[in-house]
Amino acid sequence: MSVADQAPSYIRSIMPYQPGKPISELAREMGMPEASIVKLASNENPLGMSAAAREAAGRALAEGARYPDGSAFAFKAALCRKFGVRQEQLVVGNGSNDVLEIAAQAFLAPGLSAVYAQHAFAVYPLATNARGARGIEVPAKNFGHDLDAMAAAIAADTRIVFIANPNNPTGTFVPGTQLEAFLQKVPRDVLVVLDEAYTEYLAEDQRYDAIAWLDRFPNLLVSRTLSKAYGLAGLRVGYAIAHPDVADLMNRVRQPFNVSNIALAAAEAALADDEYLARSADINRRGMAQVTAAFAAMGLEWIPSAGNFVTVKVGDAAAVNQALLRQGVIVRPIGGYGMPHWLRVSIGLPEENARFIEALQQALA
Amino acid sequence: MSVADQAPSYIRSIMPYQPGKPISELAREMGMPEASIVKLASNENPLGMSAAAREAAGRALAEGARYPDGSAFAFKAALCRKFGVRQEQLVVGNGSNDVLEIAAQAFLAPGLSAVYAQHAFAVYPLATNARGARGIEVPAKNFGHDLDAMAAAIAADTRIVFIANPNNPTGTFVPGTQLEAFLQKVPRDVLVVLDEAYTEYLAEDQRYDAIAWLDRFPNLLVSRTLSKAYGLAGLRVGYAIAHPDVADLMNRVRQPFNVSNIALAAAEAALADDEYLARSADINRRGMAQVTAAFAAMGLEWIPSAGNFVTVKVGDAAAVNQALLRQGVIVRPIGGYGMPHWLRVSIGLPEENARFIEALQQALA
Repeated sequence: MSVADQAPSYIRSIMPYQPGKPISELAREMGMPEASIVKLASNENPLGMSAAAREAAGRALAEGARYPDGSAFAFKAALCRKFGVRQEQLVVGNGSNDVLEIAAQAFLAPGLSAVYAQHAFAVYPLATNARGARGIEVPAKNFGHDLDAMAAAIAADTRIVFIANPNNPTGTFVPGTQLEAFLQKVPRDVLVVLDEAYTEYLAEDQRYDAIAWLDRFPNLLVSRTLSKAYGLAGLRVGYAIAHPDVADLMNRVRQPFNVSNIALAAAEAALADDEYLARSADINRRGMAQVTAAFAAMGLEWIPSAGNFVTVKVGDAAAVNQALLRQGVIVRPIGGYGMPHWLRVSIGLPEENARFIEALQQALA
Repeated sequence: MSVADQAPSYIRSIMPYQPGKPISELAREMGMPEASIVKLASNENPLGMSAAAREAAGRALAEGARYPDGSAFAFKAALCRKFGVRQEQLVVGNGSNDVLEIAAQAFLAPGLSAVYAQHAFAVYPLATNARGARGIEVPAKNFGHDLDAMAAAIAADTRIVFIANPNNPTGTFVPGTQLEAFLQKVPRDVLVVLDEAYTEYLAEDQRYDAIAWLDRFPNLLVSRTLSKAYGLAGLRVGYAIAHPDVADLMNRVRQPFNVSNIALAAAEAALADDEYLARSADINRRGMAQVTAAFAAMGLEWIPSAGNFVTVKVGDAAAVNQALLRQGVIVRPIGGYGMPHWLRVSIGLPEENARFIEALQQALA
């Protein structure tokens, strides 16, 4: 027996996460100059980092040889000011991916289970399976979360329910009133991980305040990221707001220096940059109109999206994806999400959206 | 029952890692200006980041809004050139802490065990306990690894043996010949995680090449970090070199974007900066002589160290530590390692070492 053969069977059966293809990789494969490639595959902020965050990150490099502050004191203080929460309610992660993994690590184990929706974010089953826990996938309703069915699916051994709102990769949205009603139904010993990675893109009339619910629901965890509307995907920062007992356990199992100096400094600056955030939401709103108008003109079906991406039905998505790649346009095939006829495309700058639309027309012609 | 009460008992009993006190924290607590504080608590590189690494990191900020290349292609290519290994043997981590956690995640579970030495790095028991596995701590010999006893301690359910060489926090060193003999004795289905975080500080006559052993020992994993001699502690980069089957499993369970853009770029540049590495080793050698000469003059016992730190017996270390903190000098008490009479001090710049020696004389007077 080799070492690898001896790993637990649930580890040996894990399929790795399929990330969006990096620009550098396509450039290598196709012999294209990087500058000619448009990447709309990873729901990144097309504006690039905010100037304030970039400046703060640059300054932090002066202390790059020092370990980060593992308690993330300054960034947590900024979160406390912004959201009216306390330091002991916070867990800072290496992206919200880390937050999700830490929650799974703290609360799941062989013999336990987690509930999540069909077509929901791939990290939920990955994080569940990596702990040897059982995943309970609840069929989607109109590509989104069926909260009644999810509440009914909670088993005696369930410790976590994962909910993405808006959902990735489908962009579907559940109103706050429905989430609140769902929380009323969930047993108090089951953690509800509410993944709000895309919450900053919600329209005015969709907004709700899950953080205000924490007082009533000690089993709620709100997960957020700086990778999307705050433009820090490459630096890796996310955070959880939860009951202090939940945050305490998670802080014990997380890596002591999970977030870099540079990321913490940039995150603190980004959090204060309201102008950049508003500009990000605005360019997304206009890009979404641009892209969906083109879909309508082309007679394509798409799923109305509350995020910074939209999922469109193109037939043989693998073939269309290849045709797009040959034109230097990277989007995300989501066959791995059980949607082999669909592509997920991130909203970019107006000229990037136009390049994508043109390439899509060519690919489908 | 609350959510936290329902967490597995091995999670609820984890005590968090105690990091070195950040300069900013002591400044806050004592009302001292940060510039007046000397931190010799976390085995950081006193030279600060190399200019080449800092420049590369600064350039990478231009792409800070893009997700990192999850495959770390360019940094791995640099490792392949430097060490004559193949991409599929590599796992890149968010510091070598992440590498150690990923190994534990891939190979440990409830019902399994890991072997490590008394007074060895705190992350070994933490990573073991967080997976519900049993830790088998083998008594130290002269504060270092007793390899014969460790080989004998391997149980039927043991999946990992952790060895730090040099060891942190004691600085002890095991010659390569002894490690090789140990590997001969270990069953092939037990992973030997050889943690070489401080290997770049070894004296010429201590050097050995564990990477060359990988062909003969498919159950060997060599863990390295860029946080010490390469000066990137704040950015978080480490790596493992192992058999492709071991690396493959670890790459499946690691977080897909565990290392930031900025860290990858800086690491690639740092790896090529031989001049900086030589300067780091040199300033460490001279600082070690400076500090240990002072210990000798003060009649203090210390453990000869092969790393960039040295552990010294001061009596009531908690009290001496407080006296040092009041003078603005941060070192590391290691009562948590079962050594309540000792302090671990990192080797700094000559003037930092002098500040520490002066403060220690005052504290002991």
